[in-house]
Amino acid sequence: MELRNDSVKAGEEMLSFAKQLFPLNRSIMGPDIRRTYDFFKAKHPDLKPLIFKSGDKVFDWIVPMEWSIRDAYLEHESGTKFADFRESNLHVMGYSEPVDMQLRKEDLIGKIHVHPFFKDAIPYVTSYYKRDWAFCMSSDQVAIMPEGTYKVFIDSTLEDGELVLQELVIRGTSDHEIFFSSYLCHPSLANDELSGPVLLSKLVEYVQSFPNLNYSYRFVLLPETIGSIAYLSKRIDTLKKNVICGFNLSCVGDERGFSRVASRQGNSIADIALQSSLQELDNVTHYTFMSRGSDERQYCAPGVDLPLCTFSKSKVGAYEEYHSDKDNFDVVTAKGLAESYEVMTNIIAAFELGLYPKVRVLGEPQLGKRGLYPVTSKLNKGVHPAALRMNIISQCDGATNSFDISNRLEVNLSKVLQELRLLSSHDLVELSAT
Amino acid sequence: MELRNDSVKAGEEMLSFAKQLFPLNRSIMGPDIRRTYDFFKAKHPDLKPLIFKSGDKVFDWIVPMEWSIRDAYLEHESGTKFADFRESNLHVMGYSEPVDMQLRKEDLIGKIHVHPFFKDAIPYVTSYYKRDWAFCMSSDQVAIMPEGTYKVFIDSTLEDGELVLQELVIRGTSDHEIFFSSYLCHPSLANDELSGPVLLSKLVEYVQSFPNLNYSYRFVLLPETIGSIAYLSKRIDTLKKNVICGFNLSCVGDERGFSRVASRQGNSIADIALQSSLQELDNVTHYTFMSRGSDERQYCAPGVDLPLCTFSKSKVGAYEEYHSDKDNFDVVTAKGLAESYEVMTNIIAAFELGLYPKVRVLGEPQLGKRGLYPVTSKLNKGVHPAALRMNIISQCDGATNSFDISNRLEVNLSKVLQELRLLSSHDLVELSAT
Amino acid sequence: MELRNDSVKAGEEMLSFAKQLFPLNRSIMGPDIRRTYDFFKAKHPDLKPLIFKSGDKVFDWIVPMEWSIRDAYLEHESGTKFADFRESNLHVMGYSEPVDMQLRKEDLIGKIHVHPFFKDAIPYVTSYYKRDWAFCMSSDQVAIMPEGTYKVFIDSTLEDGELVLQELVIRGTSDHEIFFSSYLCHPSLANDELSGPVLLSKLVEYVQSFPNLNYSYRFVLLPETIGSIAYLSKRIDTLKKNVICGFNLSCVGDERGFSRVASRQGNSIADIALQSSLQELDNVTHYTFMSRGSDERQYCAPGVDLPLCTFSKSKVGAYEEYHSDKDNFDVVTAKGLAESYEVMTNIIAAFELGLYPKVRVLGEPQLGKRGLYPVTSKLNKGVHPAALRMNIISQCDGATNSFDISNRLEVNLSKVLQELRLLSSHDLVELSAT
Repeated sequence: MELRNDSVKAGEEMLSFAKQLFPLNRSIMGPDIRRTYDFFKAKHPDLKPLIFKSGDKVFDWIVPMEWSIRDAYLEHESGTKFADFRESNLHVMGYSEPVDMQLRKEDLIGKIHVHPFFKDAIPYVTSYYKRDWAFCMSSDQVAIMPEGTYKVFIDSTLEDGELVLQELVIRGTSDHEIFFSSYLCHPSLANDELSGPVLLSKLVEYVQSFPNLNYSYRFVLLPETIGSIAYLSKRIDTLKKNVICGFNLSCVGDERGFSRVASRQGNSIADIALQSSLQELDNVTHYTFMSRGSDERQYCAPGVDLPLCTFSKSKVGAYEEYHSDKDNFDVVTAKGLAESYEVMTNIIAAFELGLYPKVRVLGEPQLGKRGLYPVTSKLNKGVHPAALRMNIISQCDGATNSFDISNRLEVNLSKVLQELRLLSSHDLVELSAT
Repeated sequence: MELRNDSVKAGEEMLSFAKQLFPLNRSIMGPDIRRTYDFFKAKHPDLKPLIFKSGDKVFDWIVPMEWSIRDAYLEHESGTKFADFRESNLHVMGYSEPVDMQLRKEDLIGKIHVHPFFKDAIPYVTSYYKRDWAFCMSSDQVAIMPEGTYKVFIDSTLEDGELVLQELVIRGTSDHEIFFSSYLCHPSLANDELSGPVLLSKLVEYVQSFPNLNYSYRFVLLPETIGSIAYLSKRIDTLKKNVICGFNLSCVGDERGFSRVASRQGNSIADIALQSSLQELDNVTHYTFMSRGSDERQYCAPGVDLPLCTFSKSKVGAYEEYHSDKDNFDVVTAKGLAESYEVMTNIIAAFELGLYPKVRVLGEPQLGKRGLYPVTSKLNKGVHPAALRMNIISQCDGATNSFDISNRLEVNLSKVLQELRLLSSHDLVELSAT
Repeated sequence: MELRNDSVKAGEEMLSFAKQLFPLNRSIMGPDIRRTYDFFKAKHPDLKPLIFKSGDKVFDWIVPMEWSIRDAYLEHESGTKFADFRESNLHVMGYSEPVDMQLRKEDLIGKIHVHPFFKDAIPYVTSYYKRDWAFCMSSDQVAIMPEGTYKVFIDSTLEDGELVLQELVIRGTSDHEIFFSSYLCHPSLANDELSGPVLLSKLVEYVQSFPNLNYSYRFVLLPETIGSIAYLSKRIDTLKKNVICGFNLSCVGDERGFSRVASRQGNSIADIALQSSLQELDNVTHYTFMSRGSDERQYCAPGVDLPLCTFSKSKVGAYEEYHSDKDNFDVVTAKGLAESYEVMTNIIAAFELGLYPKVRVLGEPQLGKRGLYPVTSKLNKGVHPAALRMNIISQCDGATNSFDISNRLEVNLSKVLQELRLLSSHDLVELSAT
């Protein structure tokens, strides 16, 4: 994928922002998710919080306690420390209750999670809805833990608190909204999850760069699952009324490919838009809703059914570093993020350019007199030099949108947009907003 | 296919009943079809006959004479008998007129049918609508017939009589009917045909085992072709008004695979239901209507177009023993019948459970608090333990029926029903009758 | 493809007519296109001209000047002539302006077009909309042109004139029209283009041979592109109102295969009709609209969208002799033309026979009593002798047209028509005109 200059620049800025956020020990609720939001608020002062309290019922769920953690480790009777939270905040299972006890290794071992296939990786484990505690370690580390007695120590708190979501709406001429959601609840993990929020932040900037907007745009940051459920419980009527196209941004920072997790129906405008923006790219995977794994689970649940799909590079669970300390900046790169930025901004550009192009003449236009077609008719080797242009014109019937045109011609959306801009500048194609 | 206990039991009972009926010399009309019906009437006293007379016009057809046969054989001048009807009632072509003459072997040979590829099989041949006579023998037997003169003897009668069909309707809350048809007109042949009627009999019992029924059920037994045409001529208005799903049961007793012969349109609810009930089974064949061969020919004819397909194990004409004396209890087994019973009862169960499941909550339900989902979120090897449950829930939108859910997920209908029962018992899914 | 006798005869007549027209130096406008029309007018006195003047605006296009040419050559200082127009009228680029100058070989060479891959072929090149001149030669000839100075001579005229189209409408009972268009604008080229107009002429005769017509038929001959655009500019309302099925005839004279270039939507009745008439033929290619290249470009343009597809043997650009002097009667044959005649006349026959056959009985008809089905029911080897007949009957629901029946059964339209005629003669099928 050849990148635009602005995408390259955005990629570097996203990477730098993600690195800044990486050390914080995010969870679905607690102090570090607040600190993380502060960084976004500094960039986007218009972000507005939505707050729920522990114990609030949101659809079928109850908002849990808020979790704080200060310290945690396993200390062998010899004084050697293992699974020290200060070394990696993955060492403690998310939402572990406080514990301070002595256990022999053989009794402790059942409370230690290891990675199912990497010997040297710390897995990421949580238990939000059942009070419990556990440690997470690499198998290699567990292997060298000496026999004997360990001090098991977790200095954490579980108490009534707040579930916080953030929302930003940018109004355009139409009330119809393009919706972007990403999630913040994972501690030091790069692709799943920081890549999504930093892309979302850049998309806010991209949308704000338009002097006038045809459509309205809604951006939300929230903890996965409980956050999107809480958000829906508050906004479902508005969302169902206004959202015409939405994307959940998840794992958008690696360089390994491009994925769409389809909406429940599979053919919403979001699905079609994303397909068009992925045309001709390498290593594209279209998953059905049966492979869902992120907040599309809520946004597309029966009765919710927003026209939304998930955009990923390597989907949740489909890359080996997923949910371990290996999901770091070896996986997420400026290039990976830049590619995702370009995929998403092309879709926004298509909406804003005018989604239903209509050729202004009957029959084929005479492109030759405008310098858009070879004036001598002779045999060509290979594809006709104006084939793409003519093919795009042949689809501009005012009822077929730019996404469908791109998909029918199997050319990337960016090429369609480029031709439409040219044809529009020659007054050959009418680009209407809706 | 792993069988339910009640299916295993039903399989044995069906086999035993079929063996009881096997020796009778059924044809489309005549004394042994009456005797066969008596056996069914003994099990199902509510069966009601519909009677047509020889000469009655039914749509484009005329009900033929009734055929009785007492004896038939070929006797060589040496006294040796061949093609003795008392040894196999397949030896005489169905509806053979009476004959008592002397013929030399070379003149007789053109009146003897042999099997097209089995040397040791007696083929099954009929001539209902043109007066004629013939014998059917194995090629091996024909080969040893000595030269010389034969007494050709058929002691049969063709006279005005009755075409008898049997019908049983079980009323449920709704007038909408699930319709089952099978045919009785073949002499000693096991898969084509006794397997169908004995399965139908067991399905009557299954339906009657429900204390309350959402739907009504209609069962008919009749001779193939002329019987279904006659039935339609009398009931077409009722059938077109009430039948929402129907199955013709044909060759349902072998263990070799599972077949659907699609309705004319190919996508009726019967087609979809049968597809779902065949999901994940071994050796499933979906035939189009172009491969039709049984009473779906009439039930799906243009202008009739009932939402009906044919269910078979090995379809008419698609197993080598078809229409020969090899179609016996080497082909039809208790296991084969039991499998068919299970395929059909799952469909009935789906109708009666409530066909359009609807999840009662917005967003995903919190399964963990109900013990339906692992409470610790960690990496799994292979498929997520609650994947099927979550996928089924994701389809319960109140507009998608259980058959479609099964087909979309490519899991057998029985698994969908099992999960729906569980989810319903937790008040998570609403199961409405229609 | 086995040909009907009338097709064989038509093939020979078409070939002979094409040979008569071959030498004329047609272009989009000018004296030889008039002469060509005179030949058609002699066969079809009802052809009516539509005339446009140079400078007329037709949709997005301006009708150009009219081109006449009397002589052209390159003469080396030694007196040797090259690219002599009297030897081949392809030697001069179409619409070349007059020129009379001396040029050295190195300056001349840029004004000589050669064929991209055949060394011994003269390519066909035009420049209708930009004043220019050029010669066309084989690479072999260019290779032997000596160095030195050449007299470059083109005695041509470009002046105000007329763009002439020809139209013939044959009225039937219904105002609904079947539309045939072919183009005349290429000089001595056989497949692209004379094959199309000579087939169109024979189709006029075929339609006129019906004593009564269910449908109306419209035939047009016109120069490609500018002609169809001009025609649409005058007739679009009538065409959109009346035309229910149309074909552009292009390159229909070779023996190499059969092609359909689909309409823009891809599923018009014309597409379906042509598919049915090509069923079971060898080497059939179905191109999408993205492979368009002839007047379907105009007839199916957005907003025009006639239900029309293009019928070809080897499509424009898909045979190697295309647009060179090799496109001659080595490519176009009587057999090739006859096959195309048969493909098109079968479609017309289907329309006139009655397009929506409806079986007159409910249930299957009893074919046996009419001699249309074997009366003895026994095992067959291979396909049942009445399988096609029964399958066709099974589709005669009054809502499915003969084209769809043919396509569903994957049998050639001609076989469907043959069976329908037989069934109709037995009063089993009703053939209604619309």
